[in-house]
Amino acid sequence: MKNLKMIFLKHSFYKLILLVLLVSASAKAQIQKVEPPFWYAGMKNPELQILFYGKNISQYEASVSNNVVIKNVEKTENPNYLFVTIDTKDVKASELVFSFKNNNKVAFKQKYTLKERRANSADRKSYDASDLIYLIMPDRFANGNPKNDSNASLTEKGNRALPGGRHGGDIEGIIKNLDYISSLGATTIWSTPLCEDNDKEYSYHTYAQSDVYKIDPRYGTNDDYARLSAEMHKKNMKLVMDYVTNHWGISHWMMKDIPTKTWFNQFENFTQTNHRREVIPDTHASKIDQEVCIDGWFVPSMPDLNLRNSLVAKYLTQNAIWWIEFANLDGFRVDTYNYSDPTAMANWAKSVTNEYPNFNIVGEIWMHNQASLAYWQKDSKIGEIKNYNSNLPSVMDFTLQSQIGSVFNDDTPNWDSGLIKFYNNFAMDYLYPNTNNLLVFAENHDTDRMNHTFKYDLAKYKLAMTLLATVRGIPQIYYGSEIGMGGDKAKGGDADIRQDFPGGWDGDKNNAFTAAARTSEQAAYFDFSSKLFNWRKSNEAVHSGKMTHYIPENNTYVYFRYTDAKTVMVVFNNNAKLQTIKTNRFKENIKNYKSGKDVITGKTFDLASEITLEPKSALVLELE
Amino acid sequence: MKNLKMIFLKHSFYKLILLVLLVSASAKAQIQKVEPPFWYAGMKNPELQILFYGKNISQYEASVSNNVVIKNVEKTENPNYLFVTIDTKDVKASELVFSFKNNNKVAFKQKYTLKERRANSADRKSYDASDLIYLIMPDRFANGNPKNDSNASLTEKGNRALPGGRHGGDIEGIIKNLDYISSLGATTIWSTPLCEDNDKEYSYHTYAQSDVYKIDPRYGTNDDYARLSAEMHKKNMKLVMDYVTNHWGISHWMMKDIPTKTWFNQFENFTQTNHRREVIPDTHASKIDQEVCIDGWFVPSMPDLNLRNSLVAKYLTQNAIWWIEFANLDGFRVDTYNYSDPTAMANWAKSVTNEYPNFNIVGEIWMHNQASLAYWQKDSKIGEIKNYNSNLPSVMDFTLQSQIGSVFNDDTPNWDSGLIKFYNNFAMDYLYPNTNNLLVFAENHDTDRMNHTFKYDLAKYKLAMTLLATVRGIPQIYYGSEIGMGGDKAKGGDADIRQDFPGGWDGDKNNAFTAAARTSEQAAYFDFSSKLFNWRKSNEAVHSGKMTHYIPENNTYVYFRYTDAKTVMVVFNNNAKLQTIKTNRFKENIKNYKSGKDVITGKTFDLASEITLEPKSALVLELE
Repeated sequence: MKNLKMIFLKHSFYKLILLVLLVSASAKAQIQKVEPPFWYAGMKNPELQILFYGKNISQYEASVSNNVVIKNVEKTENPNYLFVTIDTKDVKASELVFSFKNNNKVAFKQKYTLKERRANSADRKSYDASDLIYLIMPDRFANGNPKNDSNASLTEKGNRALPGGRHGGDIEGIIKNLDYISSLGATTIWSTPLCEDNDKEYSYHTYAQSDVYKIDPRYGTNDDYARLSAEMHKKNMKLVMDYVTNHWGISHWMMKDIPTKTWFNQFENFTQTNHRREVIPDTHASKIDQEVCIDGWFVPSMPDLNLRNSLVAKYLTQNAIWWIEFANLDGFRVDTYNYSDPTAMANWAKSVTNEYPNFNIVGEIWMHNQASLAYWQKDSKIGEIKNYNSNLPSVMDFTLQSQIGSVFNDDTPNWDSGLIKFYNNFAMDYLYPNTNNLLVFAENHDTDRMNHTFKYDLAKYKLAMTLLATVRGIPQIYYGSEIGMGGDKAKGGDADIRQDFPGGWDGDKNNAFTAAARTSEQAAYFDFSSKLFNWRKSNEAVHSGKMTHYIPENNTYVYFRYTDAKTVMVVFNNNAKLQTIKTNRFKENIKNYKSGKDVITGKTFDLASEITLEPKSALVLELE
Repeated sequence: MKNLKMIFLKHSFYKLILLVLLVSASAKAQIQKVEPPFWYAGMKNPELQILFYGKNISQYEASVSNNVVIKNVEKTENPNYLFVTIDTKDVKASELVFSFKNNNKVAFKQKYTLKERRANSADRKSYDASDLIYLIMPDRFANGNPKNDSNASLTEKGNRALPGGRHGGDIEGIIKNLDYISSLGATTIWSTPLCEDNDKEYSYHTYAQSDVYKIDPRYGTNDDYARLSAEMHKKNMKLVMDYVTNHWGISHWMMKDIPTKTWFNQFENFTQTNHRREVIPDTHASKIDQEVCIDGWFVPSMPDLNLRNSLVAKYLTQNAIWWIEFANLDGFRVDTYNYSDPTAMANWAKSVTNEYPNFNIVGEIWMHNQASLAYWQKDSKIGEIKNYNSNLPSVMDFTLQSQIGSVFNDDTPNWDSGLIKFYNNFAMDYLYPNTNNLLVFAENHDTDRMNHTFKYDLAKYKLAMTLLATVRGIPQIYYGSEIGMGGDKAKGGDADIRQDFPGGWDGDKNNAFTAAARTSEQAAYFDFSSKLFNWRKSNEAVHSGKMTHYIPENNTYVYFRYTDAKTVMVVFNNNAKLQTIKTNRFKENIKNYKSGKDVITGKTFDLASEITLEPKSALVLELE
């Protein structure tokens, strides 16, 4: 890709042309963008930084109506940007008017709306360990509105034949299938990003956004997104937005006229991140390695945002809050969380959770040991070693995720393989400030699909789902695996792990959304999943109960989740043959319970002496 | 082995017989053991618990001369033990006399000496990162006195033909070769245990001690051990004792007449430790798993000491202190540190370091990730999470150790293999409270020897030694590897990794102790090692300087150790071919230095642009 220096050179040239054109420009045309486009009255933080973008706008003096105080006006070396910070304290919902003067004369005006917030907006609940998150890539889930597959203003057109192309899935497709998702037992949807991504290819993943105040028209409109949220709330479901703080897309409108040199991180030559997030807390790290990690670009098509620039940090904070208010969101998932300046990210998370104290945010912290993961969770004692508090409520349990495939594929474990890997994972839980707020998952849109890893062995799928449904944390599953979909990341381009959900497109031969049309294989996957996760919905012990686990023996693993009122006993037999376990060892938890009822089959097991398990199977027993 | 219950039954039977014999017993014969056998005046902790062992001694009333106060007398259910605690505060070095009365008449007396301490005994220095530790298995190092190879009172006789037998190495053998060890650049000796081990086989490893107040006669006498220490101090060397808190040997004299049921940990049936030390800080661990880990026996021949019994804890603390005073020790290495009650161990370490504030103790914490290791180091922030402070000054860097073999054998690393493993190891250093007090090592008496792992590739040996000599922490090497010895743990019985040092026995064909008699291969190993470690002796920057390292690129790894005055640049080329590295990336550390002098060859390298390294080689450059 072109390096930014070239873009700047071009920019200087355009400035000259703009200067020439300026005299003849109409007053109305002065303002091309206002961001946030509107705001809300009564936010805890009364300061609002409004970006006005227009030709030479920095030459004008801004004032505002309704006795609202302008606290600060900030200009950059680019005259086309003006950042005006107003104080909204005690300002009622209303329409304000900004006036822009030149030589003491108002040259043009701009209306600006402060809207009413929803009742209890600040106190909104969020997702937690009582939920099941269903992760969707919207382009690949369901095409509810085939008319929006392409859009005249956007470069990449719909082309379902292209593995890495836009397939047409959209918000309408999600709305139409909410009952399907709900019937599976999922309560929450995390959709990968939906804001406009005008990249000329691979825009379907939408992590390279070109306008962060606008839903991509190929997914629908901003109002469609708000409608998705509203429809979900009617069904007692929750919507989690995938927020990206680290980077935008190369086609972002600001890339055509960069607000200031330090808006994006730049090096003399194009520099990619080294992806070694280990450098961040490392006492021995060189400055250059830390700088390249944080400031290097994720890929050439994703300009890296400089959150150390307070204008940028404020912009991203407000954008996040704007979406929460506008779409009535229930939570965030944040992409590439530890690829940005850690202090700036901590401030971003703090600002969001200051406005919404219960709001949950899970960060993609893709690290390989528990200490490194725990470092990044809010109030971490490990972070404290480096005087760091991320303020990030939740992290993803990537160490668990990375083990699930190998563990269930391993019938003959040795000292440190097989089920002991799970045991050792949970044995490190003391490092985390809050294990109930870890995201637990077997796969996502960036990993192999487990059904591929398991070679489509349903028994192993069931083991993995049983694990996710019963360990501490918030389980997350990935669209389609619940009907047996697979996908191999090694095939390249990630297309194989992001295939279309069958039945999401008119004319699909197989429709897995409806019970009647599912193949028997799909039904076997779905029925088990649905039974398990619907059971989970109402079981407090697995949501927030304590855990006691026992060192795996004979390739079996036993743990308990319990409250004062309820005890669930979970038993894994990872052998390819029958296995009997003696119950005596577990008396600390079995206590006076006599039997356990399997939540899947309803069969009752006597706990007096021993339990026999089928090959490669698990039992989830409610003790009675 | 017999379980303890049986031993108790026998014991009760003997008690009856003893009772019958009591009347006729002479007064003198009453006392068979006094432990500690003597003590020192002027210890910080004035309390001294003296164990008196003799037939029915608990029936007597003890008193003591010189106005010394008896603070406590403790009896157990075994009448043959009496634990008398005296207050030695302000008591001068002197000979005390204990009197034992029956019916108000003195039945017998026992002299007890309080000796003078050495000047500045409490303030003794210890080993630290300026040292190089040489680990010896004394039975396998050198047979200085062939007359003590067998001993009439001890079961196992010398038999050098037996791989797991006693080969005859002894203290005299170490003393005779101190100049050899010193010439290598080692400043400190850690010898595996030397106290009496009367097991009938495998007693050569001596971790199953039968008398912890007595050097095994096959190694020499207590005075020989003190002489070793004195000879070492004359040469400015330091002696580290291998202390075992977790267990004794099945032949320990107390096993024939157990002081109290809770002196050793017992289960209904013989129970081995599960070896899963992960359970100790684990919030989810079951009580039974924790109990089996801590109280289970290491092997059937090693009764597990119950440090929760305060008599035992005090006994072990005093025994440790006694050896420090008696043999004028410079430090401890503690075996199987986290196989005992963690609180009791923390108290043990605290008691020892209260007496000797500078005394270093390195614990064998054989864990597999940095957080788990860091948990066990004194003042750990990770321990703090569980309100635990081990008081253990030093732990062994087992994560580094486990990687050395695979890293240098790996010529074509991928994203997470090869040199990045070292980088990632040091990147976690922030977890440790004190990285300068980590023991760094490539091997010890329980692991494969690196020369075996490296298939006797001298280049790889040099890489490993260069790493140990230049990273933070206290380097430790293992006898014999410095002249190319190998050993394969997989061969079983550990005999292969504990072979005799050539030249340690009269008549050895090859004598690697003397330069003249070394083979050319041995000389190549030794000369490099000696050059490197003798250089290290005087370089402050590698002892205690800061470290900055750079993410490995092109299978090379560069780091710097530096103080304000000195900078050492270390460069590894792990490729099997020449590799050139550009120096520009390291300017943070190169600063105004112009060149670097290799400490091995003396060759000077210009730092202006690039450095070329030989295949599989490292450079240690003193910057100039």
